[in-house]
Amino acid sequence: MAASAGPEIERLISLLAKLPGLGPRSARRAALTLLKKREQLLNPLAVAIAEARDRVRTCSVCGSLDTSDPCAICSDNTRDQSLICVVEEVGSIWAMERASAFRGRYHVLGGLLSALDGIGPERLRVEDLLRRAGNGEVREVILALPATVDGQTTAHYLAERLGPSGVSVTMLARGVPVGGDLDWLDDGTIAQALRARRPA
Amino acid sequence: MAASAGPEIERLISLLAKLPGLGPRSARRAALTLLKKREQLLNPLAVAIAEARDRVRTCSVCGSLDTSDPCAICSDNTRDQSLICVVEEVGSIWAMERASAFRGRYHVLGGLLSALDGIGPERLRVEDLLRRAGNGEVREVILALPATVDGQTTAHYLAERLGPSGVSVTMLARGVPVGGDLDWLDDGTIAQALRARRPA
Repeated sequence: MAASAGPEIERLISLLAKLPGLGPRSARRAALTLLKKREQLLNPLAVAIAEARDRVRTCSVCGSLDTSDPCAICSDNTRDQSLICVVEEVGSIWAMERASAFRGRYHVLGGLLSALDGIGPERLRVEDLLRRAGNGEVREVILALPATVDGQTTAHYLAERLGPSGVSVTMLARGVPVGGDLDWLDDGTIAQALRARRPA
Repeated sequence: MAASAGPEIERLISLLAKLPGLGPRSARRAALTLLKKREQLLNPLAVAIAEARDRVRTCSVCGSLDTSDPCAICSDNTRDQSLICVVEEVGSIWAMERASAFRGRYHVLGGLLSALDGIGPERLRVEDLLRRAGNGEVREVILALPATVDGQTTAHYLAERLGPSGVSVTMLARGVPVGGDLDWLDDGTIAQALRARRPA
């Protein structure tokens, strides 16, 4: 699209357009909203982004993002240190924490094994995980990886590598999601839910 | 959604979620992308937003947004001063400029008349428009307002108010958009295109 809003505004638009979920058109709309709502939106966002840039860092233990290192979860002694939940990315930690169903600690892999994209184990935080799992305190490693080909390849690889450490390695259950209507579910999920059926 | 990513990151997420086109989930994804792509995205966006906050202002002539006042368009003497194109919002100026079909100047109304939302003429930049249209230089005012009920109400109101000034008042044509397939067009557009048909 041709530049039309002056170089400063165009640069803001082109950066906003790089955010996932915003295309060129919605980035324009977002920039306009920002410039129209200075007090409620533009000024606070300028502060929040500068603060994120200056204060948020990667936790040296689990790989999560927080303003402290170790992060709030790794330094929370009320959480179960014998449980490690392995996730692909920090976003999965946020999702798990929203569900409030897990009180152990996390380990961010930083991606998934992918033959297609040429991502091998050395690109992921695998050695760190093996070291943490072998420290004598950890009892169980839960692999909370996506139910995709790459996710499952990675899970099998990690299960094999973790074998010698003697910790128990588990995976999230597969089945019908809460609120899931059979009409809208894919065949794979239905087949897995049927195989893993249990007494009512 | 419960807080789960620390107060600084949660604040960034909640501000991003106020942008049009981003909901709570996509704002989370956007925040994560920002924090992961510091060099390419977070740092330049921090600069661009701070610059927009500090430098972009409203043009006192046309109501557009630019780093200079009068804006680049109002101070461009190669543009036709006898033509004023009236738009609802600054975003419409950007769209018109992308089309490169108009070489006059603009006037941003700042909204549309709306009985439902209680927006009367005193809330819009109507008096400024009448003053500009009556300065003796202006020959034509083009009403480029949305083809909605409020847009058309506003257009009729402005046409009536501009009547005494003697300038000619026109509206954008209605019809089938470029690339528009009849199968996908609404009935109103088809009816208007048919009424306004012309020799092939």
